[in-house]
Amino acid sequence: MNTLTVVKIGGHILDDAGKLPIFLNQFAAIPGPKILIHGGGKIATEIGQGLGIEPNYTDGRRITDAATLRLVTMVYAGLVNKELVATLQASGCNAIGLTGADGDLVRTMRRPVKEVDYGFVGDILPDGVRKQFLEELLLKGMTPVIAPITHDGAGTLLNTNADTIAQAIACSLSDRMSVQLIYCFEKAGVLADAGDEGAVLASINQEVYGILKERKVISGGMIPKLDNAFTALSGGVAQIIMGHAGDLPALISGQKGTCLKWT
Amino acid sequence: MNTLTVVKIGGHILDDAGKLPIFLNQFAAIPGPKILIHGGGKIATEIGQGLGIEPNYTDGRRITDAATLRLVTMVYAGLVNKELVATLQASGCNAIGLTGADGDLVRTMRRPVKEVDYGFVGDILPDGVRKQFLEELLLKGMTPVIAPITHDGAGTLLNTNADTIAQAIACSLSDRMSVQLIYCFEKAGVLADAGDEGAVLASINQEVYGILKERKVISGGMIPKLDNAFTALSGGVAQIIMGHAGDLPALISGQKGTCLKWT
Repeated sequence: MNTLTVVKIGGHILDDAGKLPIFLNQFAAIPGPKILIHGGGKIATEIGQGLGIEPNYTDGRRITDAATLRLVTMVYAGLVNKELVATLQASGCNAIGLTGADGDLVRTMRRPVKEVDYGFVGDILPDGVRKQFLEELLLKGMTPVIAPITHDGAGTLLNTNADTIAQAIACSLSDRMSVQLIYCFEKAGVLADAGDEGAVLASINQEVYGILKERKVISGGMIPKLDNAFTALSGGVAQIIMGHAGDLPALISGQKGTCLKWT
Repeated sequence: MNTLTVVKIGGHILDDAGKLPIFLNQFAAIPGPKILIHGGGKIATEIGQGLGIEPNYTDGRRITDAATLRLVTMVYAGLVNKELVATLQASGCNAIGLTGADGDLVRTMRRPVKEVDYGFVGDILPDGVRKQFLEELLLKGMTPVIAPITHDGAGTLLNTNADTIAQAIACSLSDRMSVQLIYCFEKAGVLADAGDEGAVLASINQEVYGILKERKVISGGMIPKLDNAFTALSGGVAQIIMGHAGDLPALISGQKGTCLKWT
C-alpha cells in the first residue's frame, strides 16, 4: 500500500463556504489511501444558540453537558460529516462518514473527574482504535471521514478532541504502513514570532518547541496541538506537517507549513 | 449465509424512551445478519421548532426545503443514528451507522417537479443500492444502521422515505440470500377494521388489500407503506411482516403481526 495520508481539519476551513469546496477537491485528489478527520466550527455554536444551549465553561474549561453532547452529535456527526461526505462523493472520492461508535472504531472512556468535571468527554483507550476495520475500508478504496464523537462501549457517546483522534489513528496504522499526518489550522505553520504570520518555521523539534513555549511564543491552543503532533512523531508516524488548509497541496509536497523533526 | 433480517422502525418506537432500549436489545439478539433502517420521530420537529424551522406543507404535502434538509440531516443522521449505534454496541451488536451518501450506499435523484416541488427529496435510482458493500459489512458481522438521508452523487443530500429505503435494500439483497423484512409501525398489524386494534389480519394479499383500500378500511399513510411492502414481495423478498416494534420477537416468529402473501 502507498503512503497513507491522514488530514485533520478544524473550524477555520469548515466555516469558510468559499474555500471548503476547493480544499475538498484538493483532498480528493491526494493519491493513495487517505483519511479525513474533522472538528466542529462555528455552526455548532450558532445552532446551539438557536436551541438555547450556551457554551458551558468551568474555570475556563469547556464542559460537555448532556445538552451539548446532543448538539455536537447532531452537528458534527450529522450535518458537518454528511455534507463533507456528499461533497467528496461528488469529487469521485468514495467517502464514508464515521464516528468512533460506528463499527466500534474509536473506544474511549469518560474523562475521570479531578479538579474539573469535563462532562461527556472521552479519552481514547490504549488500543482504542479498531485499525483492522480502517485498513479494510482503505483497501477497498474508501476514504473514512471521521467526526470527533466516540463511545465508551457501554452505550454513551463522548465528545473527543479531533487532534487527538487524528494522532491516535495515525499512530495505530503506522506499524502497517507509512503514514503522513497533516494538521490543518488557522495559521500557515508554527510561527517563530506569534505576531508575524510570515515567520513560519520550516521545521520544529522538541528542543525548539520547549524554548518557544518557555518564551511564550507558543501558547494557548497551540500547546495541546503540538503535544499531539509530537506524540504522533514518537508513535511512529513517518511525517507530520502543520499548516493552513488553504495550502494543502503545498503542505503535502513540503513547500509550505511546519514539519516536525526528531532533531 | 443465514437469513438476512431487515427491520424498519419509525417515530413511534424512536420517541418511546422506555421501550426503545428493550426493542434494541431484542434487535441485537436476532441471530444472523441484520440491518436496521430508521425514520425520524418527533425529535426532529421539536428541534426544528427550537430553531424556528416549521414544517412546510404545499397542498397537504410535506416539503423538504433547505432548512429542513439541514435539520433532518442533523437529527436523523447525527443524533438518532448515533444514539442507536452506541446503544446497539453496548448490546454486543457491532452496529455501523450510515446514510445513503456513505460509501455511495443509496444513490437517489431529486424528485422531478410536477404539480408539487417536494424540495430536497430523493427517489432511489434503479440499481441505486450498492449491495456489494452491504454484503461485505454483513459478512464481517457488522450491522448497518441506516438513516433516511441519501445523496444524488453530485454533492446534494436528499431526504428519502425510510420505508422505501428498507424495501429497496431488502430487494437488492434478495438475489444473494433469503431476506425477511419487518416493518414496525404504530399498530399491531394491518387491521380489518381501522377502529379495532384487535382486528389484526394474520396475512394479507394484493386482492384483500385492494378491497380494504376501496372500502377505506386502509387509508392515509398505510397505503404507501403497504405499496412498499408489496413491491418488496414482488421484488423477491422471502418474507414481509408488518406490526408493532414492541412485538419484535413475536413478529419474527410469526406469532404476531400481518404477513404479506402472494395468494
